[in-house]
Amino acid sequence: MTLMEKARKGQSAKEIKAVAKSEGIPEEILIGRIADGTAVIPKNIKRKGLEPCGVGLGLRTKVNANIGTSRDMCSLSGEKKKLAAALDAGADAVMDLSTGGDIHAIRKALIAECPKPLGTVPVYEVLVRSAKKSMKSLSLDKEELFDMIEMHADDGVDFMTIHAGLTMYAVERLKKQKRVTGIVSRGGSFLAAWMCQNKRENPLYEDFGRVLKICKKYDVVMSLGDGLRPGAMADATDRAMVQEMITLGELAAECRKAGVQSIIEGPGHMPMDQIEANVKMQKCLCNGAPYYVLGPLVTDVAPGYDHITSAIGGAIAAAAGADFLCYVTPSEHLGLPGPDDVKRGVIASRIAAHAADAVKLGDRSWDRKMSTARKALDWQGQEKLALHPDRFELFRKTQNKKQSKGDNTCSMCGEYCAYKLSDNV
Amino acid sequence: MTLMEKARKGQSAKEIKAVAKSEGIPEEILIGRIADGTAVIPKNIKRKGLEPCGVGLGLRTKVNANIGTSRDMCSLSGEKKKLAAALDAGADAVMDLSTGGDIHAIRKALIAECPKPLGTVPVYEVLVRSAKKSMKSLSLDKEELFDMIEMHADDGVDFMTIHAGLTMYAVERLKKQKRVTGIVSRGGSFLAAWMCQNKRENPLYEDFGRVLKICKKYDVVMSLGDGLRPGAMADATDRAMVQEMITLGELAAECRKAGVQSIIEGPGHMPMDQIEANVKMQKCLCNGAPYYVLGPLVTDVAPGYDHITSAIGGAIAAAAGADFLCYVTPSEHLGLPGPDDVKRGVIASRIAAHAADAVKLGDRSWDRKMSTARKALDWQGQEKLALHPDRFELFRKTQNKKQSKGDNTCSMCGEYCAYKLSDNV
Repeated sequence: MTLMEKARKGQSAKEIKAVAKSEGIPEEILIGRIADGTAVIPKNIKRKGLEPCGVGLGLRTKVNANIGTSRDMCSLSGEKKKLAAALDAGADAVMDLSTGGDIHAIRKALIAECPKPLGTVPVYEVLVRSAKKSMKSLSLDKEELFDMIEMHADDGVDFMTIHAGLTMYAVERLKKQKRVTGIVSRGGSFLAAWMCQNKRENPLYEDFGRVLKICKKYDVVMSLGDGLRPGAMADATDRAMVQEMITLGELAAECRKAGVQSIIEGPGHMPMDQIEANVKMQKCLCNGAPYYVLGPLVTDVAPGYDHITSAIGGAIAAAAGADFLCYVTPSEHLGLPGPDDVKRGVIASRIAAHAADAVKLGDRSWDRKMSTARKALDWQGQEKLALHPDRFELFRKTQNKKQSKGDNTCSMCGEYCAYKLSDNV
Repeated sequence: MTLMEKARKGQSAKEIKAVAKSEGIPEEILIGRIADGTAVIPKNIKRKGLEPCGVGLGLRTKVNANIGTSRDMCSLSGEKKKLAAALDAGADAVMDLSTGGDIHAIRKALIAECPKPLGTVPVYEVLVRSAKKSMKSLSLDKEELFDMIEMHADDGVDFMTIHAGLTMYAVERLKKQKRVTGIVSRGGSFLAAWMCQNKRENPLYEDFGRVLKICKKYDVVMSLGDGLRPGAMADATDRAMVQEMITLGELAAECRKAGVQSIIEGPGHMPMDQIEANVKMQKCLCNGAPYYVLGPLVTDVAPGYDHITSAIGGAIAAAAGADFLCYVTPSEHLGLPGPDDVKRGVIASRIAAHAADAVKLGDRSWDRKMSTARKALDWQGQEKLALHPDRFELFRKTQNKKQSKGDNTCSMCGEYCAYKLSDNV
């Protein structure tokens, strides 16, 4: 039985108990949400030693870090460093998006070292194999595709992106309109290119039942991918995007029928004022399935700083109800991220997630503790409470060199410290 | 005549012409907004060579960078570096908040080197002088206070923070309730401490007419300071804050009567879901006066990363109608910023301002140009269009070393580039 099937029978599980405890919500409520698909706990039945992590209604907003090799930057040790950077920075989940080197070996090594849910996009590996044969005339063997999905599941992958909503009908919507950046999803562009070249329906849609069967067998969470997500402000909330989301809603319903846990992937690039509408639409079209957004990036013009453009969009999305933020690193649009980019990306996303949770869940106890320590000029207390302490140490050391012993102010105000002055009020 | 008085007579000025042109709005509209106080152009009559910058209704959201010395970090050359960093990163205005060294000499030097509007907080210098006499029993000589304001104006300062809304009545509201961090404004805490110690009304409020006279004489924009801004999520939108804003609205009306340009300062630390309400309230209470917010920071827990917490809040505020963002640097809450912090702070605020303008002003042409260059894999074009190109170069160089000549993809996807694949669709 999958976790969803158990929950439907009113049964709990050790993952449910652990998540209910860490989230501070009653176990029965969580069982109900796993049962009705408004929350998921990604954990492949083959995985050992996983720290269970819940994603969905009433749970803290989670952060995913994408790592993985590419043709140009490809080493297992590099990926291990990125994994360590992501975990150290506090990522709740990791996706291995490798497209270079021995992809299978890298995946197995990362799964072995990752105590958090690990996701993949199996179609990437199919694309790599297809491209080795020919880039011009893309091949896509159905059996190979489903074997690949099964292989990822058998390796212990906890959640998988499946671009099954990218139908011929949705591609027609795309063709009927204009887009500035076309399709920006790698998996989406591969599938769409193959579909158009071969005038064939997306096999993931056509044979969705086969994907369901695999996910059910291994209790893999299906992350229904948005192959048509907007990659530019100008392309946001267009008919192609909404068309795909309608299908994703239908597929999420199929998942529930089959007892398979599922989440929905979302944009992408999007002007600030469309984000809340996007989240509300997803929640309606997909019957409250957890929403997993990439960013959203609220402007296209800040390459080198897209962890910030994404933190803005991610905070707005999560406050509106998005459940899971896929980080974006400073190297987005420029190259594959390194470990430091991974760290920066995770921290920016965690800030967005927490700022949103202070609103969405209404829990501001952590903020209150920090502000209490701040007012008391308790620097050790502040450091312990910091979302990430690295810069705390750095700034305290480098920017407060001249302070005499016993001086508990900082170099910003020194003796004119407002906290001290206002003690007189 | 002040610019506002000229505008009231329907007269234009070269500053108005320049701003109307750079903003792409009709001159008559801008004249009307200067006349009714919904927009300002800070420029002291004594200033030479200033690039006029408009702040207010229908204009692009502007970014201010706070620089200045402190007791512990105090050098003119250091401040010149910070000024250069702020200007290089694209700050629209700069405030000199110096409290260390020869404050007057530093101010004059910065004014001489700054082609953008420069602001100060004269009460800081009064505080420094007062503290030299005694920190325990704070003195505040009225004549000295107004002389200081006049000296700043005579030096050519274009806008000045005046904490005149911090009345005894507002301080009583503060005392009647509890706050986690009390008063976090340096000027505010000094004035409130003096008021409470001496049981006297705030001289800036009591003799507001004298401030008006000085601002009118030099055509200085009065930035009505929020001495009671919340410094913690838990303190946001409390009665003290709102009480002060009511008074600021009345004082803004006084400014208009006197022909003095004014803007209103706002928070501070604030949960995401209060920001829009805050901006709407300010616009109502202050008859549409331009709103100048510090952040807002949407969580208290991210010291070392408060340029990001502020970018989130600033974007939401500006999208809701705030006109002017005061940056926050990564060293906020930890120490005085250095040049690199200044740069990071300005860039994060500019991202927030632009993301908001894409919504508030609806102009997405810059984003469209960037996305068009991106889709075309036109890296030179993207670099030219980047909000700040520094990391663009860095990432392109360090993370795309292995690319062969003529390969126009990046190390993220290489040959599996979605832009290239989707050309087949």
